[in-house]
Amino acid sequence: MTMKVLGISGSLRKGSFNSGLIKAAIEVAPADMTIDDISIADIPPYNEDVRSESGYPPAVAALRAAVAAADALLIATPEYNFSIPGVLKNAIDWASRPPEQPFAGKPLALMSAGTGMLGGARAQYHLRQLCVFLDMHPINKPEVFVAHAPTKFDATGRLTDEPTRQVIATLLQALARWTLRLQATR
Amino acid sequence: MTMKVLGISGSLRKGSFNSGLIKAAIEVAPADMTIDDISIADIPPYNEDVRSESGYPPAVAALRAAVAAADALLIATPEYNFSIPGVLKNAIDWASRPPEQPFAGKPLALMSAGTGMLGGARAQYHLRQLCVFLDMHPINKPEVFVAHAPTKFDATGRLTDEPTRQVIATLLQALARWTLRLQATR
Amino acid sequence: MTMKVLGISGSLRKGSFNSGLIKAAIEVAPADMTIDDISIADIPPYNEDVRSESGYPPAVAALRAAVAAADALLIATPEYNFSIPGVLKNAIDWASRPPEQPFAGKPLALMSAGTGMLGGARAQYHLRQLCVFLDMHPINKPEVFVAHAPTKFDATGRLTDEPTRQVIATLLQALARWTLRLQATR
Amino acid sequence: MTMKVLGISGSLRKGSFNSGLIKAAIEVAPADMTIDDISIADIPPYNEDVRSESGYPPAVAALRAAVAAADALLIATPEYNFSIPGVLKNAIDWASRPPEQPFAGKPLALMSAGTGMLGGARAQYHLRQLCVFLDMHPINKPEVFVAHAPTKFDATGRLTDEPTRQVIATLLQALARWTLRLQATR
Repeated sequence: MTMKVLGISGSLRKGSFNSGLIKAAIEVAPADMTIDDISIADIPPYNEDVRSESGYPPAVAALRAAVAAADALLIATPEYNFSIPGVLKNAIDWASRPPEQPFAGKPLALMSAGTGMLGGARAQYHLRQLCVFLDMHPINKPEVFVAHAPTKFDATGRLTDEPTRQVIATLLQALARWTLRLQATR
Repeated sequence: MTMKVLGISGSLRKGSFNSGLIKAAIEVAPADMTIDDISIADIPPYNEDVRSESGYPPAVAALRAAVAAADALLIATPEYNFSIPGVLKNAIDWASRPPEQPFAGKPLALMSAGTGMLGGARAQYHLRQLCVFLDMHPINKPEVFVAHAPTKFDATGRLTDEPTRQVIATLLQALARWTLRLQATR
Repeated sequence: MTMKVLGISGSLRKGSFNSGLIKAAIEVAPADMTIDDISIADIPPYNEDVRSESGYPPAVAALRAAVAAADALLIATPEYNFSIPGVLKNAIDWASRPPEQPFAGKPLALMSAGTGMLGGARAQYHLRQLCVFLDMHPINKPEVFVAHAPTKFDATGRLTDEPTRQVIATLLQALARWTLRLQATR
Repeated sequence: MTMKVLGISGSLRKGSFNSGLIKAAIEVAPADMTIDDISIADIPPYNEDVRSESGYPPAVAALRAAVAAADALLIATPEYNFSIPGVLKNAIDWASRPPEQPFAGKPLALMSAGTGMLGGARAQYHLRQLCVFLDMHPINKPEVFVAHAPTKFDATGRLTDEPTRQVIATLLQALARWTLRLQATR
């Protein structure tokens, strides 16, 4: 049976390196895994008054449904101001509200790309703290930090750096194993 | 000379406890300090393509100007999913972009209110990490964590808990002293 | 089959609240779980030169063996200076060195007690970051933060607060379930 | 007047890269700054019972006095298990106890060296959280993360990488300016 992974990029920029990581993941995924990409571009600023008066906006409802339907998640996060982007956090803030909390119990793999030497590491550790509340199970290894990103993508935004493509393949294999372990004992 | 403090609440909810903290701060501010409140409700999702094609949206330009004009900042942040709200992070992601980075060198005081026992502490430590990048100077003490918030505000959202009002007064006095120290040696 | 849990208190003080949490855990453990307590008092300051010249000191070797033999770990950590105690970190620094890294793959439950309102929360989040490197699998819920600790223990250091005893029982049940899930699919 | 900086390396290893950073700092310090190095090797495991019964051990008393006498601190921290070394944390746990808390109000500069690509970044952010409690004032920029350390030191442990030597010089100039600002308004 095919494992369904939901891929989320934390950047709205068309040429985003992190969106490029999700695209590369789709290309190098193991045979028994499909990765579907979902955009967070249409998710409005979270406001609990809106939710209690009008319910979930369509883009949020779609994200919630996609998370709920996924066997596992794959998040590629930029690092802005030494943390995760507001737009990614905002999408999670919306999608994690009641009645069902769709992230609960899901396996997760993390990637990040950045222009500097740390490759988004700071954002990933903040994201891991969210996972405690969300009751997600992020895999520990490998950690995928893509430093000096502009040297690793071509002009079309395709990840061309072969070692990075291989570590993403390794990450997805680890995610597949971890997901099977958690599902077998649900 | 009056010290100008810019107050920012990280919640868009009308009855927000954190917006209530900013209102309480306005009431208990020292005589030589004025606190102006700015809303982040109209700030759109950050997208660098938008910025490079159309420049700053009006709500972002207004926030950038207000930050630049302030002697110091006062942020009241909710804690969502064990970190700062996406909407607050998004406002900072927009406002911190080039050419001028208006947060650089600014003194900052932090508050948070939450329904649980930690009173938003986790959000404040994430926010402090942002300050390293932003080159802000947050004060260390007192830390203002308003736990069990529903018991400390009345039905109109006014902070009625007297010890909390006093610690906010103490926080603002510390912010005033810290701001004067930094300004005297700029 | 009995599940073997290794309990570690991060404080060396005789009347330590955190050692009291471990003792309480021993009392409220589920029927099929035994918790053995190990002291870190005799572990010397970590120095890689010592390790490469003389190998592991006896107290470190004992800790490494106990970790390796355990089905799961239970750590009760004080919070000193907004992080985990140096003595606890030092024990982990020693015990995690090659050739085998005994923490890898182990399930973990966390507790903390403190005199303040946060009950050691900051220490637990730092400890969770260590787990990424150590490749441990800490459970997410419940989080056990024992605030205002002096009011919850008697003069002999026994945890007398009934709600806290119950949340520890809940924590251990969650640890047992999580450990069985991970072991079944090893 | 000469500015007195206390340098602390968080590693006990003779050939430590981080001790090498402190030595390099001594060599590139501005003309009006002296950096004295203090060892934490003889500091025993922190135990509050020891302190209340026998007072501060000699190595701790010496560290406390040196911190109190310094105009500013310079810490070079390794990263072990994604955080600061237990031995460094333990030294701070001891030195920060009553009656005087000698770190309070001190300016601080941070450096780290590591064998990996992050150069100790994770340790520095944990250390910054300690500074909130300790009421220290770490400088924000430049951040000095020395990645791939084995390629940047010679066989005697001397830092030979010229760009790294220059960023340390820049760090110390920033520390000098920050210290003067804080002292002028004490």
